[in-house]
Parts: sequence; structure tokens; C-alpha cells
Amino acid sequence: MSFDKGMSNIKEIAGADGIHAVEAIQELHPDIHKYVVQFGFGEIYSRSELNKKQQEMITISCLITLGDTANQLKFHFKAALNVGITPKEIFGIIIHCIPYVGFPRVLNALQIAKEVIDEAEAL
Amino acid sequence: MSFDKGMSNIKEIAGADGIHAVEAIQELHPDIHKYVVQFGFGEIYSRSELNKKQQEMITISCLITLGDTANQLKFHFKAALNVGITPKEIFGIIIHCIPYVGFPRVLNALQIAKEVIDEAEAL
Amino acid sequence: MSFDKGMSNIKEIAGADGIHAVEAIQELHPDIHKYVVQFGFGEIYSRSELNKKQQEMITISCLITLGDTANQLKFHFKAALNVGITPKEIFGIIIHCIPYVGFPRVLNALQIAKEVIDEAEAL
Amino acid sequence: MSFDKGMSNIKEIAGADGIHAVEAIQELHPDIHKYVVQFGFGEIYSRSELNKKQQEMITISCLITLGDTANQLKFHFKAALNVGITPKEIFGIIIHCIPYVGFPRVLNALQIAKEVIDEAEAL
Amino acid sequence: MSFDKGMSNIKEIAGADGIHAVEAIQELHPDIHKYVVQFGFGEIYSRSELNKKQQEMITISCLITLGDTANQLKFHFKAALNVGITPKEIFGIIIHCIPYVGFPRVLNALQIAKEVIDEAEAL
Amino acid sequence: MSFDKGMSNIKEIAGADGIHAVEAIQELHPDIHKYVVQFGFGEIYSRSELNKKQQEMITISCLITLGDTANQLKFHFKAALNVGITPKEIFGIIIHCIPYVGFPRVLNALQIAKEVIDEAEAL
Repeated sequence: MSFDKGMSNIKEIAGADGIHAVEAIQELHPDIHKYVVQFGFGEIYSRSELNKKQQEMITISCLITLGDTANQLKFHFKAALNVGITPKEIFGIIIHCIPYVGFPRVLNALQIAKEVIDEAEAL
Repeated sequence: MSFDKGMSNIKEIAGADGIHAVEAIQELHPDIHKYVVQFGFGEIYSRSELNKKQQEMITISCLITLGDTANQLKFHFKAALNVGITPKEIFGIIIHCIPYVGFPRVLNALQIAKEVIDEAEAL
Repeated sequence: MSFDKGMSNIKEIAGADGIHAVEAIQELHPDIHKYVVQFGFGEIYSRSELNKKQQEMITISCLITLGDTANQLKFHFKAALNVGITPKEIFGIIIHCIPYVGFPRVLNALQIAKEVIDEAEAL
Repeated sequence: MSFDKGMSNIKEIAGADGIHAVEAIQELHPDIHKYVVQFGFGEIYSRSELNKKQQEMITISCLITLGDTANQLKFHFKAALNVGITPKEIFGIIIHCIPYVGFPRVLNALQIAKEVIDEAEAL
Repeated sequence: MSFDKGMSNIKEIAGADGIHAVEAIQELHPDIHKYVVQFGFGEIYSRSELNKKQQEMITISCLITLGDTANQLKFHFKAALNVGITPKEIFGIIIHCIPYVGFPRVLNALQIAKEVIDEAEAL
Repeated sequence: MSFDKGMSNIKEIAGADGIHAVEAIQELHPDIHKYVVQFGFGEIYSRSELNKKQQEMITISCLITLGDTANQLKFHFKAALNVGITPKEIFGIIIHCIPYVGFPRVLNALQIAKEVIDEAEAL
């Protein structure tokens, strides 16, 4: 089932922290939680065209471009590290967005990435 | 020099068609052309954190999210095929954007991708 | 099942024209078609908090705000008429967006709405 | 006069809290305050095509889609409750936006809606 | 009166072509036309903090950043020339947007600017 | 050299505070810092089509339209005052954006502008 697959994908991608972050949506609205887990993580992240690293690279690029996605970037920078994207590659993604979205979106993302990476390296 | 590196990157990424597309910018404004070649393709695409396939995946994700980027998507779907991203992976990128940007942006991109891929497969 | 529910919602909301428009997505990519029908129209449009008129009002407001959604606006202005939103109400929605998104988005939407409404009234 | 009509619309839609929030704009810049009251609330919210519930549904949809509108969403979720939109309908609006704008915008709005609704229900 | 002031501002800023373009809105919806003329051109363009050249520079920057504004950019590039912004300055505005909005928005605007300027210089 | 020109432009435009703000980027990522200084401030702000006041007017208009740019607006409202844009003109820019981007973006910018201007006047 997609929901169970979604939960196991979240665990694989984002670890215990990720499970916890998604549970917070459960408290806000059970159906939105269901859609995030079932459609987002269960259906879309289970597809086979791309591997987990590629999926997270695309996710991060979308979030940087959208703007006003600080919480989501925090979640997905952690997830990126978790699936094996290196800090160097994270900065590479952020830098690669510059010609397409300009500096303001990139500088906002950079600050969040730095905090997530510093915290991960301090462990 | 960044400009020469930019021209060789464009040729590698986007082939003769790409060179032609970028020359059209030259006719519109020589300095914007210079910035596209030198900063965009020369500097950013020469970085070593990501390989060409990863760079194009990120570029496409930014363009889908931005919207109003039909010309740029056409260029970069061709470039994606050129650097070895398969049609299946291109559709995978587009699908992966759904939970982050919604269906309208994705359906616009899908139509352009289909045209580029059909044309490439007809050759 | 959500897919069948999606198809019947599309028929109810958007009529034969709507079915045809969604079939075009099927030719572009069967899985994106499946997600549009199953998740979009099957799951979301089957929810009970809002009636069909309210759902279309919200959809149109999102599309106007997003920009670069001409095809989607055409589909949903037709759907709006179909579920009983009057032309006067459609213009009311567009006008109500002005203070939130400014004139450019509104004027683009207005032109499309006028064409859809004129065409519907010519029948 | 539009200005007086604007003030009475704000009172009707958003209550004493709303009046207070709009007064804060007065302190920032009297002319922007005048435009918000006169053009926004006086002119646009006085139109007859849509009722107050429909107007707030559209407003909220625009704000969710735009992003970076936390203050405005807080104001208009309160206003929504005030004009008779139920908490269930508010969540319905937010959920209906998912296929058009994606999860990040929706999750940001959800958190704000939950806070406003919890606070209203605690009274 | 704001409406008359709006019409005379449109004439001053955008000439006979501008009057014609705004009349097209009148045929689409008389009230939206009224708001464009009265609030947009009558009220906002009559303010004294900025001169006409500065107003058009700001307008163009907003439109480039928004995206999906081809019609509006055409109108305001013509208006820019009309109020004494030189072609060189128009290209300067477009170039100055690069670091803030990225190349895709800028390249779309550049093509429109070039057409408007070439047409003006051919007269 | 562009980098040195960039540093001297930052100093001229944004003073000691500006230098400090840009140094913070250096700590986040040296190459992004280099691109901001060299390409952004060194190359783009050294162009001759527009003067510093015009450049800042365009920058501010882009940032207001983009949204989610609080840090960047703070920097550039200070820079605007520094290059001789008056508080009255800053409010004029913000007001001029209303018809193009709507009230939410404008009200967010207004609050930041007011804080920057009040602080500057308190010195």
C-alpha cells in the first residue's frame, strides 16, 4: 500500500527526524498528512526513474526556486545528507541555481543549508 | 578564460543547436550574451561539484518551478538528452516536481518535453 | 476507486470537452494522466468540505495568481460555467484578485475568460 | 464614499481585530492605508458579484498561492471565520490548493490556519 | 477626477497606442477598465514622489520579475521610450535585473524590448 | 579587476554595514561570496547605463515583486538612502508597485522600509 510505502520512504530518506516532522503534519490535519505520506512520499518517491539522490536534488531545486520554503528546505537538506548527497554537492546545487533564480533565493537557501550541514557535522 | 570555457561547455551540453540558440542572444544584446556565456555557462557549468547530468536535472527543475520558461525548457530538454539523460529520466524529473509545484507547471513542461523527445526520436 | 471517481468528477465538472482535454494528457504520459485523474480529480475534487462551485472558484484563484496557466484557465473557466458559476461571478472572481495579485495577472485571465464566455454564449 | 464603505467592510469582515490591523498600516504610511481601505476594502469588497464568504475563499486562495503572506493569511483566516466560513471549510480550501500549488505553500498555510482556528475555539 | 487624470496620464505616458490598448480592456470589462484607468494610471501615476521615467523603470522591473507579462512589457517598453527612457537605458534596466531574477525572465524581456525598440527606430 | 570593483561599489552603495553584510556571505560560502561581489556588484553595478539611484530603484522593485526577500530589502533600503534616494522616494517606489504586484508584497516591504528609515533618522 502507498501509505506504508510512504512511511518507509520517509524513514529511508529522512530518518527518525523526518518521521517526527511528518507526524507534526498529522496533528495539523490528518488528511493532508495522508496525502503527503501516500501521494508525496508513497507514490512519487517510489518511482523508479530516478534514484534517491537525484530525487532530493530535484526537490531542493524546486524549493529554492519557489521561495518561502525555509521549513521544507531544512527537512530536505537533512534528507539530502541522509541519502548520501555530500555537503559539497549541496552547495553545488545551490550555486547551480544562481543563473536561473538569482541571488536572493540562493542566499536564503545558503543560510539554511549551512546551519543544517554545521549541525550534522557537529554530531 | 571563462568565455571560451562557456562556449565549449555550451557545445558539449547543447551541441550545434545550442550554439545557434545562444548566438541569437548575441544579436539581441552583446553584453547579455557575454554574461550568459561567461558567467552562466563558463563559470557555473564549469564547477566540479556536480556532473553535467546533475546540472541539467537541477536546471530543468528550476525552469519548471519558475514558469513562463518555454524557450528555456526547450533548450534544456535538448541539452538533457545530449548529456545522456534518458527520456524516461526527463519524465521522472517532471513527475518528481508535482508535489512541490503542482500540476499546472508540470503539464506545461510535459508538453514541451514530449515535443523535444518526439523530435529527437524521429531523427 | 479513485480513478473511476476522478473520471466521473471530470465528466460532471468539465463535460465531454473536459474528458477530451484530460485524454490529451494520457497521450503525453500515462502516469501523469493517472495522477491528475486519481489524485487531482478523484481524491481532491471528491472531498465534501466544499461544493463544486466553491472548488472551481478556488481553482481559478490559484491559477490566476500562479501565472503562465492559460491552458488551465481555459479548462477551468469552462468548468466553472458548467458547474453553475455565472459569467458575472467569473468576472467577480477575477476582479477580486486585483488587490492581491495586481493587474497583469488579472488582465491575462480576463482575456481568456472573455473568450470562453463569448464562445459559450454563442452556442 | 469608498473610504467609509471600506472601514465598514473591514469591521463587518474582520471585526475589531481587523480595524486594529489596518490601523497599523496607517502608522506605516497614510496613503497606502488609504488605498487598502478605499480601493481594496471599499471598492473591491463592496462589489455585488460575490458574497463575503466567496470573497474570503478567493482571497485565501490567492494568498496561499503567492507565498510569503503569513501576516495576510492570519488576517484573512480570522476574517473567514468571522464571515461564517467554518474551520472545516478553511481546511477544505487549503486542501483544494494542493494540486495547483503543491505541498510547501499548503503546509505553510496549514500551520497558520491551525493557530488561528485553535485560538478562536479557545475563546 | 481620477478617471480623467488617468486618461490624460495614459496619453502622456503611452500616447495614442496606449489609449488604444487600454480601450481594449474596456471591451473586456468596463469596471476593470475603470480600475486600471482610475486607480492605476489616475491615482498611482499621478503621485509626485517619482517622475515618469522613474515610474516606468519600476514598472518594467516589476513586470520582468513577475513573468508571464509579455503584453504588459510591450506596452511599458513603448511607454518607456515615450517618456524619454533611451533604448540604452531600457537594456540597462533589463541587465540590472539579472542578479535578482536570473537569466530566464531577463531573456524573455530582452526579446520583447528588442522588438519594441527596433520598431520604434524603424519609424 | 571585477572583484575589487565589486568591493568598492559595495562600499560606495552600502557603506561599512554593506561590507559587513557581504562578509557574512563569505563565511557561508567563499565562491557564492565571490559571485555576489564580482558578478553582482563588480560587473552589473559598474555598468554605465544607469546611475546608482536608478540601480537601487530597480533592485528594490525586483525584491518587492519576488517576495521572501526581507534580508535583501533591508540591505537595499539602507543602500537606497545611502546613494541619495529620499525616504519619500522609497515610499514612492513601494506605492508604485501596488498595481503590478498587489498589496501583500507591498505591505511586507513597507514594514521593512519603515524600520530602516526610522533607524536611519534616529541616528
